[in-house]
Amino acid sequence: MTKTLLITTPGQGLHEITDEIQTVVKGAMVNEGLCTVFIQHTSASLLIQENADPSARYDLERWLARLVPELDPLYTHTAEGPDDMPSHIKSALTATSLGIPILEGRLALGRWQGIYLWEHRKEPSRRKIVVQILQ
Amino acid sequence: MTKTLLITTPGQGLHEITDEIQTVVKGAMVNEGLCTVFIQHTSASLLIQENADPSARYDLERWLARLVPELDPLYTHTAEGPDDMPSHIKSALTATSLGIPILEGRLALGRWQGIYLWEHRKEPSRRKIVVQILQ
Amino acid sequence: MTKTLLITTPGQGLHEITDEIQTVVKGAMVNEGLCTVFIQHTSASLLIQENADPSARYDLERWLARLVPELDPLYTHTAEGPDDMPSHIKSALTATSLGIPILEGRLALGRWQGIYLWEHRKEPSRRKIVVQILQ
Repeated sequence: MTKTLLITTPGQGLHEITDEIQTVVKGAMVNEGLCTVFIQHTSASLLIQENADPSARYDLERWLARLVPELDPLYTHTAEGPDDMPSHIKSALTATSLGIPILEGRLALGRWQGIYLWEHRKEPSRRKIVVQILQ
Repeated sequence: MTKTLLITTPGQGLHEITDEIQTVVKGAMVNEGLCTVFIQHTSASLLIQENADPSARYDLERWLARLVPELDPLYTHTAEGPDDMPSHIKSALTATSLGIPILEGRLALGRWQGIYLWEHRKEPSRRKIVVQILQ
Repeated sequence: MTKTLLITTPGQGLHEITDEIQTVVKGAMVNEGLCTVFIQHTSASLLIQENADPSARYDLERWLARLVPELDPLYTHTAEGPDDMPSHIKSALTATSLGIPILEGRLALGRWQGIYLWEHRKEPSRRKIVVQILQ
């Protein structure tokens, strides 16, 4: 079973999508299987991270922004705006697809794990995520 | 078939778990399929790396520790100790899940590839890894 | 269905393999399923990135080379040449396996996404990639 989700992001940052994915999993009525989450973009990515303390996600966002700053003189790919090339690099360093086991009809996430769409562009965007359930 | 492994790590570093995963694969008696390895934590991660020369893993550990040092003034998430925020960042830069094909009843790893649990916390920890076999 | 591809790379850089993977998918005659792409090496990796403007890939290659330079005094693993340890680190920061959903008999890639073998060694190499289709 495969479903494509359209997620609207308000701009740069980690946007939790655990509930959206969990809803697809429940709808599939699969007791045990594999859920693949795939983002169809190269300037946004996927991340499984702590969902408890927002300060961890805040630091993660700022740490990555410092590692991959805008306006780096190295960039030649600048036609699509100062946040475009950093977005591709941030995407390359994180995940485009995630495989998450399903157990007892639910994603087998750890107690503190949430699934995030990591938006790397500054403007609000509409992102397509393919969720697939195999058993 | 899904099995949850409990791995005790002695602290920071790359701990090989190839044999543990291979044992689950053998037990599943599947000739051809997919093995998904998923770690249920956000301060430890998974890595497939060279299993021949320990110096490569030693350098990898030190390189990542230098890229993501403790006590960075950027961090606001400091309540869980100086090694906690670096652990989340190191996790985000590496893998939470791995998909490895099974061929002829065994993981289709390359000759020099091993599977590692990358512990990013300094204290010994008990880590849960979900291993799932689909065919 | 599992197929092993042998890809010859001319040296360091991003080499597109979308067509090779798409050909395996078509041959499998699977309408809906999961394609796992797995590279059996630890000094080359896999990446899904923009396939439109080559300048994005050019910058990505140079950015990663600057982050992980050769001849870093930190390295102790130097016996296999100055580009070997950087290759392992670059591999660890990117992907060894990718899970890509198949929809209507084709990889469900976004409009601008291509699949790349990221060769991190300077010499031409022969790389083995396992492509597996489950449904």
